[in-house]
Amino acid sequence: MLGSGYGNQNCSIARTLELVGERWTFLVLRDVFLGLHRFEELQRDLGIARNVLSARLERLVAEGVLTKVPYSERPPRHEYRLTGKGLDLWPAIVELLRWGDRHAAPNGPPVILRHEGCGGELGERRMCTRCGEPLGAREVFPEPGPGALPLAASCT
Amino acid sequence: MLGSGYGNQNCSIARTLELVGERWTFLVLRDVFLGLHRFEELQRDLGIARNVLSARLERLVAEGVLTKVPYSERPPRHEYRLTGKGLDLWPAIVELLRWGDRHAAPNGPPVILRHEGCGGELGERRMCTRCGEPLGAREVFPEPGPGALPLAASCT
Repeated sequence: MLGSGYGNQNCSIARTLELVGERWTFLVLRDVFLGLHRFEELQRDLGIARNVLSARLERLVAEGVLTKVPYSERPPRHEYRLTGKGLDLWPAIVELLRWGDRHAAPNGPPVILRHEGCGGELGERRMCTRCGEPLGAREVFPEPGPGALPLAASCT
Repeated sequence: MLGSGYGNQNCSIARTLELVGERWTFLVLRDVFLGLHRFEELQRDLGIARNVLSARLERLVAEGVLTKVPYSERPPRHEYRLTGKGLDLWPAIVELLRWGDRHAAPNGPPVILRHEGCGGELGERRMCTRCGEPLGAREVFPEPGPGALPLAASCT
């Protein structure tokens, strides 16, 4: 909850932020988009308190952005997968990434998203800069960019 | 500041949120994109505490996202305008809006963005749904949508 005055605004931006604008939530979603699906993987990558991560994941499941899928019966274990509603957040996450690459990445982009099909970069309006195809979340893969750190925590 | 572990991540999404992810900041920017440029207008529309608004605006000016432009000499008064860096946030704001329209607007979009040129709606990848032109922040105007409230606070 981002405060009553905020969530009560009759505005789709405010409502979106009410659901996914909590501190860390976008970064949890980024990690799930990048292929981290288990609590321990997410906790290790983000380095946040377990109770905070747990609360963010539960909220995203309650809102239908993520869903829990069992991967082990004994012991019972599940992983977090994006729903269709979650996958629809990809454009917003990509545009936040692109702005940061342009304005907050002094050493260049830490991560480059490439088109699975032709290896071109994801460009303006989520089109491939090489073949021009409009790209979706399932059609790109991340690669370390010039701003990547060799061993430290990064987007990859 | 969103916490040290967050801002220190070598990731363009984290760095973007470090700059613009504070509570209310996206909504301040939304209002500036929609044409509200003065402190009093913003305060009235957002209904947030003056000291919070003031802190958000100062941060955005310090980061080069907004700039102060004088509009009166006696008394000295200024308004807030988007810089190029600020205008570059438009794609992220539009994608947050579009997700909310799709998944968090039970009565339909409160606001519809239309192409100044032909009156078509802003659609997928920020293209005009009527003429297909790729659109920028300066080429659309907001119009009340089916989810607009007659008199209450809204995006418009």
